[in-house]
Amino acid sequence: MSSVATAPTASASGGRALAGIPVVPGVGAGSVIRPAERPLLPQLTGEPAVSEEGRPAELERFQAAAGVVAERLEGRATRASGAAAEVLEATAGLARDRGLLAAVAKRVKSGVPADQAVVGAADQFSAMFTQLGGLMAERVTDLADLRDRLVAELTGQAEPGVPVPAVPSVLLADDLAPADTAGLQPELILAIATTRGGPTSHTAIIARQLGIPCVVAVAGLDDVATGQFVLVDGTSGEVVIEPDRVHAAARVEAAEREAAAVAAWTGPGATADGHTVDVLANVQDGAGARKAAATGAQGVGLFRTELCFLDADSEPSVAEQARIYGEVFAAFAGREGGSKVVLRTLDAGSDKPLKFATAPDEENPALGVRGLRIAWGQPGILDRQLDAIALAAEQTGTSPWVMAPMVATAAEARDFATKVRARGLTAGVMIEIPAAALHAERILREVDFLSIGTNDLCQYTLAADRLSADLAHLNDPWQPALLQLVAMTAAAGVAAGKPVGVCGEAAADPLLGAVLAGMGVTSLSCAASAISAVGARLAQVELAACQKAARAAVAADDPAAARAAARESLLGV
Amino acid sequence: MSSVATAPTASASGGRALAGIPVVPGVGAGSVIRPAERPLLPQLTGEPAVSEEGRPAELERFQAAAGVVAERLEGRATRASGAAAEVLEATAGLARDRGLLAAVAKRVKSGVPADQAVVGAADQFSAMFTQLGGLMAERVTDLADLRDRLVAELTGQAEPGVPVPAVPSVLLADDLAPADTAGLQPELILAIATTRGGPTSHTAIIARQLGIPCVVAVAGLDDVATGQFVLVDGTSGEVVIEPDRVHAAARVEAAEREAAAVAAWTGPGATADGHTVDVLANVQDGAGARKAAATGAQGVGLFRTELCFLDADSEPSVAEQARIYGEVFAAFAGREGGSKVVLRTLDAGSDKPLKFATAPDEENPALGVRGLRIAWGQPGILDRQLDAIALAAEQTGTSPWVMAPMVATAAEARDFATKVRARGLTAGVMIEIPAAALHAERILREVDFLSIGTNDLCQYTLAADRLSADLAHLNDPWQPALLQLVAMTAAAGVAAGKPVGVCGEAAADPLLGAVLAGMGVTSLSCAASAISAVGARLAQVELAACQKAARAAVAADDPAAARAAARESLLGV
Repeated sequence: MSSVATAPTASASGGRALAGIPVVPGVGAGSVIRPAERPLLPQLTGEPAVSEEGRPAELERFQAAAGVVAERLEGRATRASGAAAEVLEATAGLARDRGLLAAVAKRVKSGVPADQAVVGAADQFSAMFTQLGGLMAERVTDLADLRDRLVAELTGQAEPGVPVPAVPSVLLADDLAPADTAGLQPELILAIATTRGGPTSHTAIIARQLGIPCVVAVAGLDDVATGQFVLVDGTSGEVVIEPDRVHAAARVEAAEREAAAVAAWTGPGATADGHTVDVLANVQDGAGARKAAATGAQGVGLFRTELCFLDADSEPSVAEQARIYGEVFAAFAGREGGSKVVLRTLDAGSDKPLKFATAPDEENPALGVRGLRIAWGQPGILDRQLDAIALAAEQTGTSPWVMAPMVATAAEARDFATKVRARGLTAGVMIEIPAAALHAERILREVDFLSIGTNDLCQYTLAADRLSADLAHLNDPWQPALLQLVAMTAAAGVAAGKPVGVCGEAAADPLLGAVLAGMGVTSLSCAASAISAVGARLAQVELAACQKAARAAVAADDPAAARAAARESLLGV
Repeated sequence: MSSVATAPTASASGGRALAGIPVVPGVGAGSVIRPAERPLLPQLTGEPAVSEEGRPAELERFQAAAGVVAERLEGRATRASGAAAEVLEATAGLARDRGLLAAVAKRVKSGVPADQAVVGAADQFSAMFTQLGGLMAERVTDLADLRDRLVAELTGQAEPGVPVPAVPSVLLADDLAPADTAGLQPELILAIATTRGGPTSHTAIIARQLGIPCVVAVAGLDDVATGQFVLVDGTSGEVVIEPDRVHAAARVEAAEREAAAVAAWTGPGATADGHTVDVLANVQDGAGARKAAATGAQGVGLFRTELCFLDADSEPSVAEQARIYGEVFAAFAGREGGSKVVLRTLDAGSDKPLKFATAPDEENPALGVRGLRIAWGQPGILDRQLDAIALAAEQTGTSPWVMAPMVATAAEARDFATKVRARGLTAGVMIEIPAAALHAERILREVDFLSIGTNDLCQYTLAADRLSADLAHLNDPWQPALLQLVAMTAAAGVAAGKPVGVCGEAAADPLLGAVLAGMGVTSLSCAASAISAVGARLAQVELAACQKAARAAVAADDPAAARAAARESLLGV
């Protein structure tokens, strides 16, 4: 089951509604376009079908096609930016690659038709790239894309990929490949919905980068025809087929007003009736922290420290680590009311192995020796990291909070807190294992604060790998069982009078952020790009409504019902 | 961390106490023996060091040694039984293997000393076995063992493996290899304790088979010298170094009285004051069911149906499945009060792939598409299995209960129950995912009964792979967070007036069985070998004490404290 199994229902906007996982907020409505089919590839006959005298012309025809395709890709690369530009430039580079061009030319000169020559040379290079492995193997996708473009150009078929529509349209697809999304023009795509994919799929990442409203894992999308009018709600996860046009326009307009409120939000975080909730940023380096400091973020709620370890051949020195940590501490230093930076100690292991420490070969790395558990066998790495944090704090005159990932028991929390406090720092732990959430009250007796990592907590609570496409519908931050554990943890914080934040995917969903505030969560930490939306939503709702929404979401039957109940309580829709 | 990190404490028996994970109940006290070191192997010089005229004598020397070693292994095989006998026979068979003997002889005839010839030939065969893979590759361990025995015999070194003590003794080791344990004589080994290993390690399995009290994952065991007097308590997990001898004798005697009560127990399951708790067996085929029917078991609490699927090249037909299921149903048919057999539908996927269905390549198979989740993509397998169960029920005139593994949500439970009830069968689900335990009340609205699988529930709740030796201390059925989820599930059953059983490792621990009864669990299902001990313990305690023990265990700080609190409440020690 690769999509959310929900039967279509009648929508409030009229029309037939499908349900999926909302991944980029906002609403778009318009006519459906779909990526063009990949072109038909010629059969390889292996025979010299082009006569001797026809071969120079055939070669010229190929060279012209390669030039057109390369120029088109280069043009798009110029208009794109970031990862999209890189993908396009890489494919264009292949279209100019002398080795590949020579391999095609050699075939054409021996009498093979140009389209067959392209396929033959692409097969040859593809096998070679695959054998080389690593980065080269990743080029195989680009190579297949280039092959299709060249064949399409040579045979008069439609250029593959997303068409450039005459008017802004809604893009529906099974799933979007890197080559499809690289050329997307955000001003012409009102929204995206796909049958497959999850919150961390390629489609979701690109849509988030481009700021295009997006819903993934929508069942029943295949039956929607090109040209039909649809509305995609990237906030609720709804896709409505042939909605009432007036109603649809009103929904789009409301979403635009919401976007304006988001753009205007500058912090600090609080509900409409003044209940404060710190809105913080997730960062992994100084550059990210400085970027976050330019938003309404009041500090850093999750400073991931993996970056300076994972690519290192040897453990970075205490001084080197201190320099890196200090950059992040400094970004929020000197603020009124003091800076707040919450650092998470090294969360390596499993799929993030360290080059300089032995990693066991594990059957289920997500359930293995990762996070704090690495320190059991190699305590020196943690000790030196804590030394570096203390040094950076001293050098920057700041007081960072320090928390450990993958804590399962109160005893582990106590051991960690002892080490942290010995260095004069404030100690906390992540709550991302069900046992830790169940024992939040006990763990809070050992530490000063908690931070809930909803991504891992969800995958363990539902026993569903967060990277599995087949289980994406279980890995939904609105799962009522997950929300129950979050609510228990938040309640333990309220009872103990100690801060409990959320720094997982859940905190980046503005509606869910308000629900979390209603549970008693004291801070929300998310990607810098989501901060304003989270803050703006909080500013529009009252605490009592948040509390009501929290109760309704926990009591709901499933994620879709939880979302709907929260919308009803908070937005009255 | 491969062992439980608990500092040694003073014991109630006097002496210094170490703590580990108890895996086979009972108490043994005596002098320490340890497995002999593996012999020193000769360097391979490759030179013909034996003169022409000395070679026939050297060959005779080798043949005599091979004969002695083979006879010794055969003698032990005769005295052993089950898996132990098989391991010993296999190694003895190698010592008589004509190919191997010829390979050694060839080397000796060319002037290589016999001990070097043995190592050389073993290396050669070892490489060959490894290359052949599969079952042959598994023989490499036996071959290494034989090589060591031959070299020891030829060079006058001590025979490797566990020594045969003059008086019954306590065996301490880092961990026990198959070859070490195969020759164990249970009448000479009073107890076993190891530094490494977990409840499912080879040591635990063999000790359980031989009925030798056993504790694994004991920190500090390396410092205990051969000849010291120790007491090993396989029920509490305590290892006491140099205990008071009188006190130790009393503990051993009490354990023997307990063993006598176990031997005398015949069922049905009930506390001393008459609160009934069904004591059931875990089985996987007709033979196992008939064996269980000969114990005090009142039925089958977990019929695993994987056996007829996993080795099959194609899906077994409905008729074939019905024949297999019917054998188990029939074993308990015609009992007073009706037979009770709870069947679990196919729990394949992840580490148990099906040959006839595609298995995705998963990063974390334990968090992947397994159990009921397979039916999402391939519903036919489940449908036909349910047809076969219904057919077998009709043919045997029984009314089996049918449950699904790996259910996460109430919606999944509802879908499954609909299919089961459509065939006139009673429907339930396993509770082995934290979300399902948290939502036990909702799930019970959809099904007729629940069965808690504590092994998987523990690994997800603690986010610790149940097969990881490094995380064995987290995978303890006495983890208070796990017990909290079990208690929540049992309480939901009591409130709904529907049965909630336990069929994981926890149900095989008599003390824990009483705790579970105190939570409101209505049945305990375990291996046939554990049934009498579980039933006998229940018969000795009153329900109020079980309830008190349950509260104390859930409130305890860690597994050791939970165990101690339960012992205190139930046994007053």
